[in-house]
Amino acid sequence: MKPSIPRGTRDFGPAEMQKRLYVLNCIKRNFELFGFQPIETPAMENLTTLTNKYGEEGDQLVFKILNSRIHENKNKELLRREFELSLESSRNSEELTERALRYDLTVPFARFVATNKNELVFPFKRYQIQAVWRADRPQKGRYREFLQCDADVIGSDSLVNELDLISLIDKTFFELNLPVVIKFNNRKILTAFAEVINEPTKIVEITIALDKLDKIGKEAVNQEMKDKGISEEAILKLQPLLNFTGSNSEKINILKNIVGNSLVGKKGIEEIQFLLDNEKTVNTKFELDITLARGLNYYTGTIFEVKTNSDTFKLSILGGGRYDDLTSVFGLSNISGVGISFGFDRIYDAMEELNLFSEIASSSTSKVLFTHFDEATQLFCLSLAEELRKNNLACEVYPDVTKKLSKQFDYANKKNIPFVCTIGSNELTSGVFAIKNMINGEQHTLKLNDMIHLIKKQLNDTND
Amino acid sequence: MKPSIPRGTRDFGPAEMQKRLYVLNCIKRNFELFGFQPIETPAMENLTTLTNKYGEEGDQLVFKILNSRIHENKNKELLRREFELSLESSRNSEELTERALRYDLTVPFARFVATNKNELVFPFKRYQIQAVWRADRPQKGRYREFLQCDADVIGSDSLVNELDLISLIDKTFFELNLPVVIKFNNRKILTAFAEVINEPTKIVEITIALDKLDKIGKEAVNQEMKDKGISEEAILKLQPLLNFTGSNSEKINILKNIVGNSLVGKKGIEEIQFLLDNEKTVNTKFELDITLARGLNYYTGTIFEVKTNSDTFKLSILGGGRYDDLTSVFGLSNISGVGISFGFDRIYDAMEELNLFSEIASSSTSKVLFTHFDEATQLFCLSLAEELRKNNLACEVYPDVTKKLSKQFDYANKKNIPFVCTIGSNELTSGVFAIKNMINGEQHTLKLNDMIHLIKKQLNDTND
Repeated sequence: MKPSIPRGTRDFGPAEMQKRLYVLNCIKRNFELFGFQPIETPAMENLTTLTNKYGEEGDQLVFKILNSRIHENKNKELLRREFELSLESSRNSEELTERALRYDLTVPFARFVATNKNELVFPFKRYQIQAVWRADRPQKGRYREFLQCDADVIGSDSLVNELDLISLIDKTFFELNLPVVIKFNNRKILTAFAEVINEPTKIVEITIALDKLDKIGKEAVNQEMKDKGISEEAILKLQPLLNFTGSNSEKINILKNIVGNSLVGKKGIEEIQFLLDNEKTVNTKFELDITLARGLNYYTGTIFEVKTNSDTFKLSILGGGRYDDLTSVFGLSNISGVGISFGFDRIYDAMEELNLFSEIASSSTSKVLFTHFDEATQLFCLSLAEELRKNNLACEVYPDVTKKLSKQFDYANKKNIPFVCTIGSNELTSGVFAIKNMINGEQHTLKLNDMIHLIKKQLNDTND
Repeated sequence: MKPSIPRGTRDFGPAEMQKRLYVLNCIKRNFELFGFQPIETPAMENLTTLTNKYGEEGDQLVFKILNSRIHENKNKELLRREFELSLESSRNSEELTERALRYDLTVPFARFVATNKNELVFPFKRYQIQAVWRADRPQKGRYREFLQCDADVIGSDSLVNELDLISLIDKTFFELNLPVVIKFNNRKILTAFAEVINEPTKIVEITIALDKLDKIGKEAVNQEMKDKGISEEAILKLQPLLNFTGSNSEKINILKNIVGNSLVGKKGIEEIQFLLDNEKTVNTKFELDITLARGLNYYTGTIFEVKTNSDTFKLSILGGGRYDDLTSVFGLSNISGVGISFGFDRIYDAMEELNLFSEIASSSTSKVLFTHFDEATQLFCLSLAEELRKNNLACEVYPDVTKKLSKQFDYANKKNIPFVCTIGSNELTSGVFAIKNMINGEQHTLKLNDMIHLIKKQLNDTND
């Protein structure tokens, strides 16, 4: 039997884990520097918590969990009827499934806030780094199990939160050495467009068409809108958006002309203006992109997207935005929040493609391997290892008893262990030990404490 | 709608997360000090990977995932037949489910080793810290989603690995300040008993009865074995086990008398003897417990168990052992391994009950809160926060604009933020800032760099 794993899922060996942890620790460190506190929610939620939150398409991608021991349920006729129902309709019966794997971290977070509202200090700033699951068709950059890294502030409608999040985004990608473009828009503007052109039901089609401007050009965008049944008059009103260039104040003027007297539009422009005015306050560059829409329904204000800024590929690696009423379906109304979600696996893939892991990939967990010749010398190695570990030096004793020293050195080489200490019968009594630096080949014979000192010093020098 | 989560699962808020991360970091640090490298496997495995691995009872506790879009499958007659089958038998049909959530980390690890054998360096030392899921009846200390922390060495049959693992166990619980008893036994001894008393099919019943010796006493154990149909002769032969006391060499003698000429028995005694002989080598105490059996079928040599050593409760918080052929079902034969699994959630519960978290529970993620009076002073706070973060000081700016300073101080108090820096209109130009220590009430007015220095110094003093 050739063992395999489900499509769209992955194993991570030590080399991949080292790179993944490097990225995760950077994100986590910055979440904490900005005052976000960690929470975790269960992998499975009640199905009712997740349904009708992600649009029809999203709902179908939720992985559902089969109720345990359904065969023990005595009422088989009921089960059969429920099963027939699930065959005919797009929903599964409660007899078959009552729980599902989380699809993102935002809905479980909203549920968490509603469940635990009496214990939380508002405004509540949380981060959450956990896997999510989607029954999507697997392809490059799209997995069925992947990590999201979310930071949200809930219980504050101040736009300072947006500025703080942009600053967090900028600092994190700067430290990862990943070139990015931070884009933002405001849902209120999109709502105003729909109002102004009198096509409230067509806003999705309009956004999809606008989103293609870079790729297909102005004429093709107009044609697509026409094909989708958008009126000539509405298309005419939207023309200034197709020439959306200039300084920030020129852009604001274009928007003002389009949204006119729409109240929601004016509020949206005010919010955009505030962020643009404070680009320097947070010492960051970000870009207003009026074609940015984001798929999720719950956004009501600022929306964010970050793309890699590389010639070879442009990938969306972060999304987010403000939601004014996410928790109300869970019984907690009038509480505004804003958050971002780092698409960890895409960031990882982008960094891999840009070869940004070259330096960190070669270091080993163990810093020293103890090699030996027989049971007595091996057992002595155990006590030396204990001393090194007391000094916070990760090390291991070659586990098998073998006369072949070359095999043990080979193990150290393959695992990139930087130091080898060989214990023979002399070392059992001499009190001095030979330590070999596997990178430059240098060898020193020292007392144990001096050896520990030397290893720490040389490891620090390498890290500088 | 009152939002709830599935039975047996839990939310973890910031305070719990801080304690959980404290324990996790301790375990992880020690795994790495002993040269184990991290891996991760997918939450869902193919159902065929998991079935027939955990005994009949265990298999029934595996959470299965409903195939996505079963209603789109056109062959409804086939689905109906498969569904009928799953109603009648204890197994579910492949049409209904092909994937399941992992039940432990050991079987996925064996599958991982078989899948990736060509990329791994053997002996392979890995650690894995991930959630597992079991459809068990929830009760105190038993959850449906819980964390396991596993360390295994695979590809070495040396008993030095057992010594190293015992040393790792001892060091970790010592650092967690949790009093424990480390017990071990050897499966070969149990196999030899079955051979010697000619009751190979009754070994499970015998072990279950022996396991109760502490609680129900000698007479009751004998009665239970009799009730289970074990012969008088066999019970007579086992009597020395019921008086299993004395020095280690006396215990070895009792075992030698019982196993007699059994080859597997002699090998088991040899292995036990080696571990007992080297208690001092690893500077640790552990105890031979001949009644220890462990539920899982794949163990073939040493077995481990750790219990809390408290008067009020004794809980099994770690298990493990040696398996000689775990990977053969996945096509990789003759590869011996040994491992341990920290039962994280039980360790956490035990530490909570013994009040071992008192000191770490009160610290905050943010070290400084910036408070302010209006938009201008709030925006100025953002740039100060940026400077602190550059110096690795976690901090936050109170997100809402409010004149009420008391509300902002209240926020700092509730979140245990140790310093508050208040920015008024004077501070916008003066270049000096007032910082208040929220624990001792001291206040200093300083330049930014001196303030950073002071905060770092006072935080370090608190940690000493």
